[in-house]
Amino acid sequence: MDDQLRKTLLNQGRQAKIASRELAVTPTTVKDQALMDMADALEAGSQEIMAANRRDLEQGEKSGLTAALLERLMLDEKRIKDMAQGLREIAALPDPVGQVLEINKRPNGLEVGRVRTPIGVIGIIYESRPNVTADAAALCVKAGNSILLRGGEEALNSNRVIARLIADAATRAGLPAGAIQLVDSDDREAAVFMMRMNDYLDVLIPRGGKGLKQAVLENATVPVIMTGMGNCHVYVDQYADLIKAVPIIMNAKVQRPSVCNAAETLLVHEQVAQELLPRALAELKKAGVEVRGCPRTRQIVPDIVAAREEDWDEEYLDLILAVRVVDSLEEAIEHINTHGTGHSEAIISENYSNVRLFLSSVDAAAVYANASTRFTDGNVFGFGAEIGISTQKLHARGPMGLPELTTTKFIIYGDGHIRQ
Amino acid sequence: MDDQLRKTLLNQGRQAKIASRELAVTPTTVKDQALMDMADALEAGSQEIMAANRRDLEQGEKSGLTAALLERLMLDEKRIKDMAQGLREIAALPDPVGQVLEINKRPNGLEVGRVRTPIGVIGIIYESRPNVTADAAALCVKAGNSILLRGGEEALNSNRVIARLIADAATRAGLPAGAIQLVDSDDREAAVFMMRMNDYLDVLIPRGGKGLKQAVLENATVPVIMTGMGNCHVYVDQYADLIKAVPIIMNAKVQRPSVCNAAETLLVHEQVAQELLPRALAELKKAGVEVRGCPRTRQIVPDIVAAREEDWDEEYLDLILAVRVVDSLEEAIEHINTHGTGHSEAIISENYSNVRLFLSSVDAAAVYANASTRFTDGNVFGFGAEIGISTQKLHARGPMGLPELTTTKFIIYGDGHIRQ
Repeated sequence: MDDQLRKTLLNQGRQAKIASRELAVTPTTVKDQALMDMADALEAGSQEIMAANRRDLEQGEKSGLTAALLERLMLDEKRIKDMAQGLREIAALPDPVGQVLEINKRPNGLEVGRVRTPIGVIGIIYESRPNVTADAAALCVKAGNSILLRGGEEALNSNRVIARLIADAATRAGLPAGAIQLVDSDDREAAVFMMRMNDYLDVLIPRGGKGLKQAVLENATVPVIMTGMGNCHVYVDQYADLIKAVPIIMNAKVQRPSVCNAAETLLVHEQVAQELLPRALAELKKAGVEVRGCPRTRQIVPDIVAAREEDWDEEYLDLILAVRVVDSLEEAIEHINTHGTGHSEAIISENYSNVRLFLSSVDAAAVYANASTRFTDGNVFGFGAEIGISTQKLHARGPMGLPELTTTKFIIYGDGHIRQ
Repeated sequence: MDDQLRKTLLNQGRQAKIASRELAVTPTTVKDQALMDMADALEAGSQEIMAANRRDLEQGEKSGLTAALLERLMLDEKRIKDMAQGLREIAALPDPVGQVLEINKRPNGLEVGRVRTPIGVIGIIYESRPNVTADAAALCVKAGNSILLRGGEEALNSNRVIARLIADAATRAGLPAGAIQLVDSDDREAAVFMMRMNDYLDVLIPRGGKGLKQAVLENATVPVIMTGMGNCHVYVDQYADLIKAVPIIMNAKVQRPSVCNAAETLLVHEQVAQELLPRALAELKKAGVEVRGCPRTRQIVPDIVAAREEDWDEEYLDLILAVRVVDSLEEAIEHINTHGTGHSEAIISENYSNVRLFLSSVDAAAVYANASTRFTDGNVFGFGAEIGISTQKLHARGPMGLPELTTTKFIIYGDGHIRQ
């Protein structure tokens, strides 16, 4: 990485840190007004955003981006309106900062309280979808944090305009300069450098695919919240109501296959395999899903591809489903705990004890009884918005809303107290 | 590191992981009985523990450990009784596992609950004090986690006996084999290898000095909770009650200088410096404290060492105190946020607004008004026990009790729900 870029990044980090001190004590009304103004600025600047977006799309086509990626990259009037609307919704959410979680008077008279405070500076490394720029910035600012945004190189023109519009609006509304900043570079080393900016970044949230995850694992010294790796399973128990099972399987796989809470493997108890599999696989085939089955699955439905061992670990994010027949609930749990990524896992069963055992034994952010894995989402869970879905166990697990963008602080009131 | 040790470590990790699945669903009564039995086993084995400890002490003397370190290493009947008593107290604490934090019925009828669950496998790397072996194991097991213990090489004989006694008692009481394991090696590379055992360790908690912290920062790929770095400050405001100030300064510095919540720097508002410093520094001198002062401090009390720039960043853990006169509350806050480690920070002031500004603006795990920094402690705060004091912002901040050794899981009850 060239020296100029390194200097720029360090300077941005320093600015973000300074801004975060002021942002931590900025009143909610000022933050909310800034979010409303940012929303207006996006709508007012929609022509400029779309012009920049067209340049990204043209370059994307030239460099051979897939149709799916181009679709994610594209911004039109409606998407910009949705982005603005998202900011207004975040403004309407309660401010987590300053929330008193508890306060206890100790025997010696000390009052020990625990209060939500901002984390400080949050770095986000993300890919393709430029709406994340506005969305992530709004969530971080609402929770009192500065944000350093590093979007995908394919969306740099769009991100540049969006970030400038919202950062300017935020500053005019009274937020400290430097609260919202974009890393304006398509140099991949800039992302790696960010992962090691421990003096300025308090947390790093990577949002992207396997390559990014691996790069973070190898390089990051800044504390990280890993998000969105989803090898999700639906397990159809011996005691499943098959009338419920088939629609759930279809929904989990087909409704939106490209997202992390879509199912990638179907596990079926051998007692119901004979009845369920022909029906389910026929429907899946109709929906264009390629099924890769274990030997027992292929005995029941012969005209499908054989699953290889690697299939159990694959996050397809596509219309592909691995299918395996298991001998028992315990085998299903073992399979999920071995191959799952700890995202979303579902059991279909009418048996009380089996449901309880599955929900308590499966090690994942979200475990479902008789519902589709597709529900794992901050909005669906009632958080109003989400910055991502954590698949790690520390700090936050599952959909992360505003409270997950804060930390806590003990505040202790004394009257000359000394320790004996 | 030799190949045999690597294999042993991986095998221990695998055992710990398998045990953690069972431990996660082990009833509280079984865990508590195991803790009581572990306590009995320590008392019954006290002769064997002390014999092993004598070997550690002899080797420590030969290898030139300081008297302070030898004192920390030493175990006698009373300390072993205290260790056992600690385990009984942990048995008496409420079990955090299974605690339902919230459950909400969503508009579509889905019930979305959030429940505390164990983290899985916790690795602890610690130094010298062998009582940590029993203490950390008990806390982890109570919260449903397996533990892999890597103590200091200077305490290996003691740790080996303690770990065997408690692990055997735990297994006899019905906990899964492998729930409590010691890394039985004095090879430093074993600790580094542990820091990268992502397949088996869910969290790593280092408890030790700067060298360990640096090694963790450089090597760890396992998620880490940093503990116990404490460059703590006492700020005496313009509006301080000096009658309260001097005892708090003395307590924060002198009562137990070797621990992380002891004060390392005194900041004094220039309006009270003339009155406070001669009194405070005379008392500190009487207590054997070496004072290192800024130029203005030395104008008021000339017979002290000059502080160098590095002194503001030093965690002495000793009878040394840096002293600086500041022009304003804002300068004090700026100094603390620049040089502090985010542990414990105190203001002495009778002024309402100044106290409020200090408490909200200082970025630390614990902020005090008119009390000694020495109170930052899990027992003092009412948590019953602590595994360490986190100085990071993710997951846990400040003293960590049993709840901080758990994560959460969303449990969702549906009735054939699919996403629209």
